[in-house]
Amino acid sequence: MDIKAKMNGRFRDLQGGLFLEVTKADVGEGAGNFMKAGGDIMAWADPFFPDPAIPESVKKAMHEAIDGGFPAHYGMPIGIYELREALAEHISERTGLSIDPSRNVIVTPGSDSGLLYAMMPFISEGDEVMVPDPSYPSNFLNPKLLGGKTVPVPLYPEDNYQVRIEEFEKRLTPRTKMVLLTHPNNPTTTVYRRESIEALCRFIIDNDLVLVCDQAFEDHIYDGIEFVAPCTLPGMWERTLTVCSISKGIGLSGFRIGYIYACDKIMDVLYGGAVNVLGAACTLSSLGAIAAIKDKEHMRSNYERLERRRRLAYDILSTAPGVEMKMSESGILSWLNISRLGTSAEVADYIMEHAKIMVNQGTPYGAQGEGWLRIVTACFASDEDAVVRFERIKVALTRLAKEKGIA
Amino acid sequence: MDIKAKMNGRFRDLQGGLFLEVTKADVGEGAGNFMKAGGDIMAWADPFFPDPAIPESVKKAMHEAIDGGFPAHYGMPIGIYELREALAEHISERTGLSIDPSRNVIVTPGSDSGLLYAMMPFISEGDEVMVPDPSYPSNFLNPKLLGGKTVPVPLYPEDNYQVRIEEFEKRLTPRTKMVLLTHPNNPTTTVYRRESIEALCRFIIDNDLVLVCDQAFEDHIYDGIEFVAPCTLPGMWERTLTVCSISKGIGLSGFRIGYIYACDKIMDVLYGGAVNVLGAACTLSSLGAIAAIKDKEHMRSNYERLERRRRLAYDILSTAPGVEMKMSESGILSWLNISRLGTSAEVADYIMEHAKIMVNQGTPYGAQGEGWLRIVTACFASDEDAVVRFERIKVALTRLAKEKGIA
Repeated sequence: MDIKAKMNGRFRDLQGGLFLEVTKADVGEGAGNFMKAGGDIMAWADPFFPDPAIPESVKKAMHEAIDGGFPAHYGMPIGIYELREALAEHISERTGLSIDPSRNVIVTPGSDSGLLYAMMPFISEGDEVMVPDPSYPSNFLNPKLLGGKTVPVPLYPEDNYQVRIEEFEKRLTPRTKMVLLTHPNNPTTTVYRRESIEALCRFIIDNDLVLVCDQAFEDHIYDGIEFVAPCTLPGMWERTLTVCSISKGIGLSGFRIGYIYACDKIMDVLYGGAVNVLGAACTLSSLGAIAAIKDKEHMRSNYERLERRRRLAYDILSTAPGVEMKMSESGILSWLNISRLGTSAEVADYIMEHAKIMVNQGTPYGAQGEGWLRIVTACFASDEDAVVRFERIKVALTRLAKEKGIA
Repeated sequence: MDIKAKMNGRFRDLQGGLFLEVTKADVGEGAGNFMKAGGDIMAWADPFFPDPAIPESVKKAMHEAIDGGFPAHYGMPIGIYELREALAEHISERTGLSIDPSRNVIVTPGSDSGLLYAMMPFISEGDEVMVPDPSYPSNFLNPKLLGGKTVPVPLYPEDNYQVRIEEFEKRLTPRTKMVLLTHPNNPTTTVYRRESIEALCRFIIDNDLVLVCDQAFEDHIYDGIEFVAPCTLPGMWERTLTVCSISKGIGLSGFRIGYIYACDKIMDVLYGGAVNVLGAACTLSSLGAIAAIKDKEHMRSNYERLERRRRLAYDILSTAPGVEMKMSESGILSWLNISRLGTSAEVADYIMEHAKIMVNQGTPYGAQGEGWLRIVTACFASDEDAVVRFERIKVALTRLAKEKGIA
């Protein structure tokens, strides 16, 4: 039988690499094999990977929980109450919103499944979702997996990737249902400024749309740039689902703890489907996450490390010949224009071969990503270990620039 | 704005209890509040809940992993290789199938999300999914969440809940796409006998359907009953997705480790969508799961405890007046016909009030569940603690029987 003939158009053409001659960075074993062969990965948005990175406070909480034996058991499918309580407090502190842990927060097993779940109640056949380009690769595929249509909306480096609202306006159709925003943006690290967010929210309200706002990188905003959560603007609370995570901000990617916050009318439906779609988050991770969120000192020192790291990355990589980049505004990434040196694929392959480092091609981040690379410059725990890799990348790029006749 | 008007028909009517006067057993805080008030829960399919239940071998592996600090980081979205390897070996031992950990297995964050994910590539608008009734509640809702239609197919207690194939045949339409089987069945504990499985598989092959087989309870089959995995029958491997879990069999529900195994053509697509739909399983849980699967002594002693437990449950509950039940064939549940005493809701409420124990009404398990109760008789670690509760339920049922004039 041809099992693919039984599949729907949403999934039929997905490929996991089993029948292709490719090395995939994000799925499967290509990356693992590359590491075993001595290569380094700076392609996963996982701070300090692959070095130890669990804070002592979290280790202690988890050791105690294991000895107690309770984490064998399910937590609530919507999340352990104490975790929702800690998250509600965390969100309130950040936004000034009044968040009820029993009505406005749901825990998800990581923010990837959270992101898809936030869209599920709204998107079905033919619904159009506007996705700024470049942005997180899943943003382009997720609408299609739900039967909808992805409408990329270009952002431009000459605008510093801020919102050019007319690009949204001219793509509006009667089927436009949602805007899917990653804020701060991944891969560009752009923090959308108040004017961008206000213009976008006006557009969303005027056209009666829904906003899903992925704020996975909100915990590290640099240079005193103001962070405006769209859900805090007038008229937005009742139409926004905000998707967050402890993966980047607290550096606990492997725990798989994400969360969504929204008004209770939306949350009622998300609670109602929680068992079916999410199951529940890991109980032990949930207990560890409570300790992590309460460890303000860890949050603070983590911030300092990451702020310093993006400067080190900038100092080294921006001076490579043929490279243009700005200092990162947020998070754990660097975004490099390497178009003078070749396509994203060519340059990423060159770095893999000559620096033995896997970085991300810009193209999965949208059409606007061609000619760019994403590097997870927060990889490796010590600055020294990271700097050695930045230098290796720079050496490779310098060599490539020479081959291309760029001084 | 009316946010519900923006939702699709699949999700719009889901309710999480925020605007209802109900106490929900599975979602939200009703159960937690009931426990805080001194009540006991025997309504979650979570062995030994709420007592400590992590084997020493698993504790040791997890303590070491935490001290090492690596579980801060992501595993592969399709599952850590060593876990897939251990699972492949486990599946091969059970089924005799040759399972390639890099082509036939994917780890999911629990089997609930695994169950929905297994269906996603196949089900969209109007596709019909046949679901034996009674069975696991999610089986009835999942097809709808994907835009499909659920077609319940009755099973009958007088058949010992085996497959009556003509009930399937008469519900076949051109839109029938899939059979969704829970085997052994939850809530009835039925192990479908070889004749049932063979008849069902013949029906599936003859009509070119897909089978999703939820085998969450496969690890505990009693009385030497043969367990036939449908994917092992001729012509079924290429059209079956088998969904499993360590939640019931190894008693580690809170770890959220499930897995799907299938042919590589199916797996290629599941690998391809893994980041978007699943994210990844918890890294620390994955490491614990490897230790658990390799701890054959724990598996063996767990089996003995659960086998003994279902006998204790039977001895006490089957002798309550007005109750009819059979000895459980599998797993951790008991399934009681209480129709002489009232509806499922009436009797469950009575037990909650008079025995202070939350059990499951039969009705969420399908129309055939009215007049029945599901009790998770594997709750509580010690037999003594469980027996005390069985006796409390019996006392309440005896009192109810008297009120109803049943001797």
